[in-house]
Amino acid sequence: MSALMPSLETRPLANAIRFLAIDAIVRAGEGHQGVPLGMAEIATALFTQHMKFNPTDPQWPDRDRFVLSNGHGSMLLYALLHLTGYAQFGIDQIRSFREMGSHCEGHPEFNTAAGIEVTTGPLGQGIANAFGMAVAEAYLNAKFGDAIVNHHTYAFVGDGCLQEGVGQEMISLAGHLQLGKLILCWDDNRITDDGSTTLSISEDVSERFRVAGWHVIEVDGHDLDALASALAEARRDPRPSMLACRTVIARGIARLQGQRGGHSGKLFEADADAARNELNWPHASFDIPRDVLDEWRAAGRRSEREYLAWHERLAALPDDTRAEFERIQAGRLPEGWQRVLEDYKKQAIEKGEGQAGIMISAEINDLLAQLPERMVGCADLEAPTSHKRSLHAFTAEDRSGAYVHCGVREHVMGSMANGMAAHGGVIPLAVTYLAFADYERPAMRMAALMGLPVKFVFSHDSIGVGKNGPTHQPVEILASLRAMPNMRVFRPADAVEAAECWALAYEHRSGPSTMVFARQTLPLVRTRSSADNLCARGGYVLAEAEGGKRAVTLLATGSEVVLAVAARERLQQEGIPTAVVSLPCWELFDEQDDAYRRAVLGVDTVRVGVEAAVRFGWDRYLGERGGFVGMTGFGASGPAEALYEHFGITPAHIVAEAKRHL
Amino acid sequence: MSALMPSLETRPLANAIRFLAIDAIVRAGEGHQGVPLGMAEIATALFTQHMKFNPTDPQWPDRDRFVLSNGHGSMLLYALLHLTGYAQFGIDQIRSFREMGSHCEGHPEFNTAAGIEVTTGPLGQGIANAFGMAVAEAYLNAKFGDAIVNHHTYAFVGDGCLQEGVGQEMISLAGHLQLGKLILCWDDNRITDDGSTTLSISEDVSERFRVAGWHVIEVDGHDLDALASALAEARRDPRPSMLACRTVIARGIARLQGQRGGHSGKLFEADADAARNELNWPHASFDIPRDVLDEWRAAGRRSEREYLAWHERLAALPDDTRAEFERIQAGRLPEGWQRVLEDYKKQAIEKGEGQAGIMISAEINDLLAQLPERMVGCADLEAPTSHKRSLHAFTAEDRSGAYVHCGVREHVMGSMANGMAAHGGVIPLAVTYLAFADYERPAMRMAALMGLPVKFVFSHDSIGVGKNGPTHQPVEILASLRAMPNMRVFRPADAVEAAECWALAYEHRSGPSTMVFARQTLPLVRTRSSADNLCARGGYVLAEAEGGKRAVTLLATGSEVVLAVAARERLQQEGIPTAVVSLPCWELFDEQDDAYRRAVLGVDTVRVGVEAAVRFGWDRYLGERGGFVGMTGFGASGPAEALYEHFGITPAHIVAEAKRHL
Repeated sequence: MSALMPSLETRPLANAIRFLAIDAIVRAGEGHQGVPLGMAEIATALFTQHMKFNPTDPQWPDRDRFVLSNGHGSMLLYALLHLTGYAQFGIDQIRSFREMGSHCEGHPEFNTAAGIEVTTGPLGQGIANAFGMAVAEAYLNAKFGDAIVNHHTYAFVGDGCLQEGVGQEMISLAGHLQLGKLILCWDDNRITDDGSTTLSISEDVSERFRVAGWHVIEVDGHDLDALASALAEARRDPRPSMLACRTVIARGIARLQGQRGGHSGKLFEADADAARNELNWPHASFDIPRDVLDEWRAAGRRSEREYLAWHERLAALPDDTRAEFERIQAGRLPEGWQRVLEDYKKQAIEKGEGQAGIMISAEINDLLAQLPERMVGCADLEAPTSHKRSLHAFTAEDRSGAYVHCGVREHVMGSMANGMAAHGGVIPLAVTYLAFADYERPAMRMAALMGLPVKFVFSHDSIGVGKNGPTHQPVEILASLRAMPNMRVFRPADAVEAAECWALAYEHRSGPSTMVFARQTLPLVRTRSSADNLCARGGYVLAEAEGGKRAVTLLATGSEVVLAVAARERLQQEGIPTAVVSLPCWELFDEQDDAYRRAVLGVDTVRVGVEAAVRFGWDRYLGERGGFVGMTGFGASGPAEALYEHFGITPAHIVAEAKRHL
Repeated sequence: MSALMPSLETRPLANAIRFLAIDAIVRAGEGHQGVPLGMAEIATALFTQHMKFNPTDPQWPDRDRFVLSNGHGSMLLYALLHLTGYAQFGIDQIRSFREMGSHCEGHPEFNTAAGIEVTTGPLGQGIANAFGMAVAEAYLNAKFGDAIVNHHTYAFVGDGCLQEGVGQEMISLAGHLQLGKLILCWDDNRITDDGSTTLSISEDVSERFRVAGWHVIEVDGHDLDALASALAEARRDPRPSMLACRTVIARGIARLQGQRGGHSGKLFEADADAARNELNWPHASFDIPRDVLDEWRAAGRRSEREYLAWHERLAALPDDTRAEFERIQAGRLPEGWQRVLEDYKKQAIEKGEGQAGIMISAEINDLLAQLPERMVGCADLEAPTSHKRSLHAFTAEDRSGAYVHCGVREHVMGSMANGMAAHGGVIPLAVTYLAFADYERPAMRMAALMGLPVKFVFSHDSIGVGKNGPTHQPVEILASLRAMPNMRVFRPADAVEAAECWALAYEHRSGPSTMVFARQTLPLVRTRSSADNLCARGGYVLAEAEGGKRAVTLLATGSEVVLAVAARERLQQEGIPTAVVSLPCWELFDEQDDAYRRAVLGVDTVRVGVEAAVRFGWDRYLGERGGFVGMTGFGASGPAEALYEHFGITPAHIVAEAKRHL
């Protein structure tokens, strides 16, 4: 091991990371020392010799991005942020690692203002986010040129991230797209939580990357000079690079290093004392000697000249180009951008025709070509989801394309979109069938948790899919997404609602939006023009009861609204005053005041929910006299109309259900 | 192309598949001809020269398994089942392809009695199921020997399955485990739905398999002799094999073959006529000439001798071995198996101590070592989830182990479990943290859809996880799983409920069970002994109101039941008669009759739900005077007790919520 293990004593910068991590983890009583101790040299080489960053302006648009994909090793990141001088990571924060309210949380939580580019922890997500950042960089570089957008994305990654399917999807797609500014540093420590990696993997990981078109450099992960050279080589190579860094997990803790317990075995004061002794670190807990801290702070200022030069180049841009760059960086939509949507609404009402739900969404997005920051990823369903339209493909050769052919890789598509949104300057859409939302769900959860304005677009949203059968027919997926905090789920009923919902989705910046569309035709139900965006309140009375006090309220979403409208007609004919409420977005409706909600839902009326999905979640609106017309289990294979009939999602059945509860 | 394209005219067996597919798809007006036309020779070589099967006994335990992972090509499977003589696939069924009620559904639906081994369609699942089948075979082979269990698992797979992360996880893990009887046939047609595979993939797929330790054979996918030899070679090789079959998509339809439209572009009568002409197939629609059908039916009888010999070997087994084999094949549990659980309940009550939720589950399962058919997969969380215990590892060298180290690959773990359950003879458990259920969710959906008795086990089920923070704290995941049809979700409150819930899960054969456990200590709340399984009705009155008519009902699950019990004490002290209802399994509770449910929930009382999760879904039980104490968004990083306090999930807050609604 001696070649692998040059003495650590001569590595005060790396040891500063080590001891901050050790001290914080001992104090917290738990944490994961494996990564900060094993990757201390890699981090030092990167941050002192390569990384372009400015701790006094963490949101500098042209900074290099750094992602700690093995997020359980969070103390590595916090140590770096502290040492290089990020304001929010003073020593008090380090001392309060894992305490309530500390910035030093168990896993890094997205906070670009503080220097944390993405939330990581669920394995595989971080490298897939990094990939998305590299896509965004390449796209913006093509648009604004090297002078304004030209930075690298670095990600640290452990064995777990590379075992995860999403990591594998990333390797394949990033290799295909040849994102040369994406550089991974793999912590090849041969230990996972269960013990030796040989328990669960035999493949040659480096070779797996090479097969996918990556540039791989094998390097001693504790040799600062070798690491610095490898990073330089990686930056020069036009391919995405992976540094296979051979490391010793938890290096510096004699009792645990290179062992299973290195990952997260409990650290004691005695371990810290022994390490201080062995590494010749005669400093108190949380005490970084002045000279070492100075050297780290100098590293934090290493990009000052580049930073100033960049601002000069930005200032020298033509006014309109600079304004455009600043606009998209701020996530502001261009003046008057909604006009096309308003026009679209008007025209839809004039035409009065129905259209396939997903085609409506495609048409609307085609009109938004005025938003050059929009990028669309799609999981090999270009034709049936149709959101490519006038866009051309983003490829290894052409970075100006705004459409990413993701292949049948929904998971990395979602995580890529998160990375793009976290990077800034682009508005990502990710498109597939709703039945495959589950493949993307871990990414959707992270978007919701981070509050990223990603648009997750889904078509083929119910048994309306028809003959492809139950595997392709969502019944529980709407509920599962509505259950997710900070996720807005939109299911528009027709072209007018679709335009309104898309307007709301683009305006929504503090979290993701899920846009759900039928495959089948959505006849026009919003036949009267309205300047207001009625969907903005999440739910509204589409048709009020007539001929007396409202007796029945039919509540429906998406493709079932037209069925509720037909049922209302019959009920009205029978003298039962019936209203139809459209509920395109529950989350927005739930934000309205009580009075509005009560007025819409109707007080003391029979309420019947109508949706080609399970009832789960609907009870909040139905009350104790509530009925429901929808699905009670999985779908079946047959023509859509036959399935609606078979499962009893018909006007006749809605009428019967309303009467049953009257 | 001539080397690749030997004349098809001389291939009547393969052409029988082609024309059944063409005729059925033309008649249905839709379908996916790419696979049945492109893989007709591969299927012919396999089913006429290698496959061990018996159409008159589709559930013969020692049959080879065949999985059509590219399930959209379902007509390939239906044609094979028809031609080889499976009773449920008469020509009428083929004619009714994609019609309501037909066995020939859009995608193959699990029905082993009819010859369909698993439901496929969502890409990547089928090959991961096949992998699980091969694991089950290897395990049972080690137990019962070659004479009784010795069969192959074949899977057909398209580019999509291999792009999916779950497919990549499978490649890595199956290579690691060296499952030599797993043989994939890759339909290397270089076309996906979007067009050329070069749109989204550049890597050398064969090489990717080789890196993972697979045996790869490149073969012309239209050359019957080459295919038959390749399959023979694959069967001889000790490694898992992948036949990279170079094919022409939709081969036989001149207008579409080798093109994007080959995948699922609409087929017309004219295409069928042209194909009949070109392939010299002068037979009417759905008409297979007698000699061709005879030859296929002979193929259907090709394993007759092996079948009889196998039954002789089975009959020659010692009685107890045969009985044991038949027991596990039938999925019957051994006589008196519950006794250990009943004893465990008694002891838990005697001890009266709390214990970490997940450790309770681990202990219970350790006691079930008497069930040798139990296999446990775990995603690199052996120590914190602890379900290995007395089991040893299933490895490339030792197939007798019942514990599969899945690595950080939750998705393939779930799909593997589905394949094991579909194979039969094993009861699979899949273990990870609840926060990572989303990674596994597409597999869980398939288990629910197929009705497979998989046990999905999850620990670390709430903010009780503590300092690891919101990425690791489920808040919406219980709701998302409860929304899934045919999925039972159990969240036991203590050791007694855990034993009862595990008994119910093992007894449940017609669908999956999700077992959810806290990381933190679950104090004993079921302090009185009961011979009955109180959890069997899903919910029950744990503590009735005292001192008058019940005014308040507190409804809780899992780790929050003890909080409800504490709140009840305070409310009782204040003279408010309060009951506590434990609801460990909503699905079972919802199956009870009205009278029982009303009695448990309490009529005309204030009801307060208590769960460290979002309210979504709870309203069904809370009624219009309902309150809820739980989460309203994602969690935070801090000690578990501090988080419960911070989010107000405390007895004091429950008391306040109850009073607010009184």
